[in-house]
Amino acid sequence: MHTPAPTPTCTTAELELIDAWWRAANYLSVGQIYLLDNPLLREPLAAAHVKPRLLGHWGTTPGLNLLYAHMNRAIRDRDLDALYVTGPGHGGPGLVANAYLEGTYSEVYPSIGTDENGMRALFRQFSFPGGIPSHVAPETPGSIHEGGELGYALVHAFGAVFDNPDLVALCVVGDGEAETGPLAASWHSNTFLNPVTDGAVLPVLHLNGYKIANPTVLARIPESELLDLMRGYGYAPHVVSGDDPMTVHARLAATLDAVLDEIAAIQRAARSGGAVTRPAWPMIVLRTPKGWTGPKEVDGLPVEGTFRAHQVPVAQTRTDPAHRALLEEWMRSYRPEELFDATGALLPELRALAPRGSRRMSANPHTNGGLLLRDLVMPDFRAHAVPVERPGTGSSSATGVLGGLLRDVIVANPDRFRLMGPDETASNRLQAVFEVTDRAWVAQTVPGDDHLAPDGRVMEVLSEHLCQGWLEGYLLTGRHGMFTCYEAFVHIVDSMVNQHAKWLKTTNHIPWRAPIASLNYLLTSHVWRQDHNGLSHQDPGFIDHVVNKKAAVVRVYLPPDANTLLSVADHCLRSRQYVNVIVAGKQPALNYLTMDEAVAHCTRGLGIWPWAGTADAPGTETGPDVVLACAGDTPTLEAVAAADLLCTHLPQLSVRLVNVVDLMRLEPATEHPHGLPDRDFDALFTTDKPVIFAYHGYPSLIHRLTYRRTNHRNIHVRGYTEEGTTTTPFDMVMMNDLDRFRLVMDVIDRVPGLGAAGATVRQRMVDARIAARAHTREHGEDDPAIADWVWPDRS
Amino acid sequence: MHTPAPTPTCTTAELELIDAWWRAANYLSVGQIYLLDNPLLREPLAAAHVKPRLLGHWGTTPGLNLLYAHMNRAIRDRDLDALYVTGPGHGGPGLVANAYLEGTYSEVYPSIGTDENGMRALFRQFSFPGGIPSHVAPETPGSIHEGGELGYALVHAFGAVFDNPDLVALCVVGDGEAETGPLAASWHSNTFLNPVTDGAVLPVLHLNGYKIANPTVLARIPESELLDLMRGYGYAPHVVSGDDPMTVHARLAATLDAVLDEIAAIQRAARSGGAVTRPAWPMIVLRTPKGWTGPKEVDGLPVEGTFRAHQVPVAQTRTDPAHRALLEEWMRSYRPEELFDATGALLPELRALAPRGSRRMSANPHTNGGLLLRDLVMPDFRAHAVPVERPGTGSSSATGVLGGLLRDVIVANPDRFRLMGPDETASNRLQAVFEVTDRAWVAQTVPGDDHLAPDGRVMEVLSEHLCQGWLEGYLLTGRHGMFTCYEAFVHIVDSMVNQHAKWLKTTNHIPWRAPIASLNYLLTSHVWRQDHNGLSHQDPGFIDHVVNKKAAVVRVYLPPDANTLLSVADHCLRSRQYVNVIVAGKQPALNYLTMDEAVAHCTRGLGIWPWAGTADAPGTETGPDVVLACAGDTPTLEAVAAADLLCTHLPQLSVRLVNVVDLMRLEPATEHPHGLPDRDFDALFTTDKPVIFAYHGYPSLIHRLTYRRTNHRNIHVRGYTEEGTTTTPFDMVMMNDLDRFRLVMDVIDRVPGLGAAGATVRQRMVDARIAARAHTREHGEDDPAIADWVWPDRS
Repeated sequence: MHTPAPTPTCTTAELELIDAWWRAANYLSVGQIYLLDNPLLREPLAAAHVKPRLLGHWGTTPGLNLLYAHMNRAIRDRDLDALYVTGPGHGGPGLVANAYLEGTYSEVYPSIGTDENGMRALFRQFSFPGGIPSHVAPETPGSIHEGGELGYALVHAFGAVFDNPDLVALCVVGDGEAETGPLAASWHSNTFLNPVTDGAVLPVLHLNGYKIANPTVLARIPESELLDLMRGYGYAPHVVSGDDPMTVHARLAATLDAVLDEIAAIQRAARSGGAVTRPAWPMIVLRTPKGWTGPKEVDGLPVEGTFRAHQVPVAQTRTDPAHRALLEEWMRSYRPEELFDATGALLPELRALAPRGSRRMSANPHTNGGLLLRDLVMPDFRAHAVPVERPGTGSSSATGVLGGLLRDVIVANPDRFRLMGPDETASNRLQAVFEVTDRAWVAQTVPGDDHLAPDGRVMEVLSEHLCQGWLEGYLLTGRHGMFTCYEAFVHIVDSMVNQHAKWLKTTNHIPWRAPIASLNYLLTSHVWRQDHNGLSHQDPGFIDHVVNKKAAVVRVYLPPDANTLLSVADHCLRSRQYVNVIVAGKQPALNYLTMDEAVAHCTRGLGIWPWAGTADAPGTETGPDVVLACAGDTPTLEAVAAADLLCTHLPQLSVRLVNVVDLMRLEPATEHPHGLPDRDFDALFTTDKPVIFAYHGYPSLIHRLTYRRTNHRNIHVRGYTEEGTTTTPFDMVMMNDLDRFRLVMDVIDRVPGLGAAGATVRQRMVDARIAARAHTREHGEDDPAIADWVWPDRS
Repeated sequence: MHTPAPTPTCTTAELELIDAWWRAANYLSVGQIYLLDNPLLREPLAAAHVKPRLLGHWGTTPGLNLLYAHMNRAIRDRDLDALYVTGPGHGGPGLVANAYLEGTYSEVYPSIGTDENGMRALFRQFSFPGGIPSHVAPETPGSIHEGGELGYALVHAFGAVFDNPDLVALCVVGDGEAETGPLAASWHSNTFLNPVTDGAVLPVLHLNGYKIANPTVLARIPESELLDLMRGYGYAPHVVSGDDPMTVHARLAATLDAVLDEIAAIQRAARSGGAVTRPAWPMIVLRTPKGWTGPKEVDGLPVEGTFRAHQVPVAQTRTDPAHRALLEEWMRSYRPEELFDATGALLPELRALAPRGSRRMSANPHTNGGLLLRDLVMPDFRAHAVPVERPGTGSSSATGVLGGLLRDVIVANPDRFRLMGPDETASNRLQAVFEVTDRAWVAQTVPGDDHLAPDGRVMEVLSEHLCQGWLEGYLLTGRHGMFTCYEAFVHIVDSMVNQHAKWLKTTNHIPWRAPIASLNYLLTSHVWRQDHNGLSHQDPGFIDHVVNKKAAVVRVYLPPDANTLLSVADHCLRSRQYVNVIVAGKQPALNYLTMDEAVAHCTRGLGIWPWAGTADAPGTETGPDVVLACAGDTPTLEAVAAADLLCTHLPQLSVRLVNVVDLMRLEPATEHPHGLPDRDFDALFTTDKPVIFAYHGYPSLIHRLTYRRTNHRNIHVRGYTEEGTTTTPFDMVMMNDLDRFRLVMDVIDRVPGLGAAGATVRQRMVDARIAARAHTREHGEDDPAIADWVWPDRS
């Protein structure tokens, strides 16, 4: 069951030019994989012309080049603003080849000129020490998508076109990638795309039939089933298949015109007013052989059209003259002499096939989003400050307060800020945003639906992969955003944040790449308050995961209350080129700092809270006997309450409380740009006194960050020890030995010389824990004396 | 477009009994969420009868109960061997209620009897401190699936039925979960299910329309599109929808009979011989209201059938008499007096609706896989040993050697071992397995396909989520397996391994749960040898991630060569209740230990290699001046080569080489069961000499594991610092300062008193690095003197 042949739209002469571009791109692709020298094959290929290690992937490349060549024709004909998302990023040589043919490559890398020397350098550098990676990468002009881990091509494409109504993202989805979960889910992105204010994604499912050694699922189910699947995903599929180049050229050109006409018609209809409904956007199924135009057979085994074409189809080209002859024959089959002139430059009639300037997909500014980045208009976060007359006495929902700021950010930036989250915006107490916007939704609505509209700035889908991928695409094309997520489940995108952090790290060293807005995470519904859930929803390890990335790109903030969260969020939203992780609670919790104090505290990143201890009150100069340190809202509550207990029961003890907002301050300055100098660290944490550190996450992270500090041997950390269930908040901290009573016991156990007084208080703490647990188990809620504790007035 | 109404198969009397069971389950579900006391409503509901904190999820529960009731009827009628996979695991109260009605709950928890006292205890314990979690959890009899993170219901169901030809897994997929990537991809599992030797999965896509605050995508696309989607996924969909209980009962009963007939017919046909083709397995779309039978309206807002029914539909039942009256009315609507007798026991005619014994889904032994677990028949791994005459002189591909052992494991265990991997079995050099088996594949094949067959023991799909989920389902139902994966991309399943590790941790404390086989990872194609790829494929952080889980369940092994890999693999495959991570290379690499030495070394977990140093040769008693430690194959190579350089250039230096296989040996014995006692650690690593540690992954992990050790301040770690691209193996280690020359420089920098000799050698190392880099950049391959280095014969 094939789609009926579309009406031809190109002359044979035009198709022959497209074919010539395609051959040129294929030639350059093979050259990159194989050659060190003799780039134009001016002499017979010798062993010394061939790279000793052949590293790259041919299989997917001719298909990518084919689509590039055809898309260029359509861009010229229609003056399209288009970019190319390469799902099969292994086809790096293809995208590099097209950028070179378009002239962009030589513009950004002047050492790779558009002549024979340049071509030699182009070939040599590919997958070569000191050169460029084998995959589509940040180094590749025109790419917003690293061709490493598969699954994110479509979400990146959708993220790119949100709020870019005139942009078309051609998105090639390999049939290998199509087997991944994130890709499978991302077809449904069309339910969130507004045909009025967003651009269009044109997915091309490229079935070349094989992964590394296996056929692909979608290439081997009946075509009727495949078309049902695409219709089920909400698309209008068009099939192009074949292995005869000129036949495929004709069908593909006509199909591309047909689908671009469909897209234009959809957008025209939607933009002419009236209700916005979800159209059936067109998509293309392209079925061509793997490694098309490559060697048909090597050493008696079929290669073209099989899994053997995946990487390097003919491998012994340096040592085996027969293999080398096969390579030479293959490269000459593209007739380079008809493509490049005597200097090695592309012939003028082929150069003319490239769109002009920024219409070239390799030079489209959307693919270097920093160029288009406009600062967020930032409303004054201080306007949302909660009043704090005395620390630790009044309560707010930190994220509830932040919701007000985010609402104002959305109003002030109607075209360049989006909030992503898996259906948790309201659950995370950010519902103030719904005073000014809705959830993006372009499917059926029914009475009673809550804030759904095609132009909503909030994107909610029960897929962390989609939230992350959309936001990445949105940021990479020069916009801003925030991803709010349950802390435990953000691990779902561990591998995606890896790839994004690596992208940022690499682009920091690419001069022509302009900085983009940071990727901001707000992790709320955190480990300590999974009241409705339990162990499965408790995991604070994302922080550990992020901290493994390059120090230059990662930042972690644990604001203890509402005002510090406002200050941190303002800072993160203004920043560039970082992955910012903010962890903050959504439940009502004590406020400690006024807005001015919060700004000062967040600017320092950590500091002493003199009111919460006895060591740092004005007039006290003896220094502390013990430091209570804390990071995170729940640990801060317990540490402050422990300080109160110590003050009450062991007034002779000199206690210092240090709160940490910016976790990276703990690392040595040599390891992280935010690292506190050792002298300052020693001043805060002493060089020899016990430090009891109440930390939000896994205790080992604090040790890992501080092991080089003078006083590390005295740092004793309490945190999450993987103990939990559906229970009360105080039962949770008790289960993990992070509770105020345990912290006091830790102090007593580590401060020498407390004698009988210490022993008495310690026993009181043991009793208090037993009583607290008994109360909880009997009543099903925490003892109000604990749950409603506030900092006492000692005035 | 609805499916035509199926032929009725139940009498009205039967349907009324099913309805009574459903009401009983709903009653018990509501009771669990709300009540502390007065379980049978013998008196008017008072505030004291209601829990102070209402934690749970009602919305999905009535649908789950409905399917349970109907499935029981079918099990009885057909003597089915069935289990129930609860995708919407939030519906914990429902599954607990059914297990209680079936009697299983009281069998495994005798304190929860089948009378009024038992019911009171059942209600009280739910989401209560000291009680049970709110979700379906390991504590829930009949579950193999924790209801925390969504996305894995279908893969678990498929994993459960592989090699269980008579098993039917009813798998409820919530329409929220259906938006996730892993779930979307897992529909394609039917391409890997052999209708002859595997059982059947019956997916029920339960459209109740809403997530937390949003409608779901699949509930709001046109039904024709939804059915296209299901057909596109390869299924034959049957729709049941409605909100009138008796009408839905009739339709569901008839539909269930129809689909179970279809399944039986498919299996009969497939098992009667002839070619195996992929059938269109039936599935059900069930469309019923969210929170069905709950309050229609609360405080003037609609609840039943809306997102407001998600958690606790009426919340102020303790403080607001009107709310409490609504709750009482709701509970009485189930007519408990018609369901339970005066003692609180389920009426006999309803008890009779439960299947008998192990036919009860809550007591099906497949859901407590350890009960069915049979040891793997383990061939002698020593038979695969590579000969090692002198250490560090001959080479093998470690995974290539392991392939032989895995081949023999497959032969010896044709019905209980599977190898999973995303299309990388051959790429990872395990191709020996294809001498005896194939890749599981039940779609089209064409000439030239490589080892595809319906009964293959190797499962390859380009989705780490599917590989992981299938394997989890397979292990949880009492079988064995291994997941081979690119090291960088195993982060894709970070969150899944979290959930599985939590399951293992919890089941360790549940006496009636029998231990299951370990989840074994083989991470090859590791960070150091991404020759064809680059930075995107380089990330050794999965080890860090796993180490955050409970020490009781995680193990990490870094065998340095082929024979140690054999020994480690044998150990892991025999083990129970662990997550075992094995990291090993696939490229040819030096062999160091004979089989006997390897066994001894792996048994110790770490140890001195006397031949590789000068400090521990027989007759040397002075102790080392420096310790070179190493973990991982590439770091071991560099450390051994560094030892050689030191021996040659600084013969006066006493060098000890310590290799670590079992990473957890580094942790203190108080922190991990494998932890080395401090005295032993000090004996190996000294208490005061410099330790240069060459480690496979991020250096911080070694510090994190060793910070409590006496000599920690002298441990200097080299590892992966997130520097890499597509380049040569030695360029990779140089980029990350892990190379032999750098290690020698580190030694010189840290051992005092080496004077001029040290300075001279240090300069030589600097020059060697420059020369090595220059060679690589010029030739595109490593200097053969480095690449082909072997341990010299000093005899």
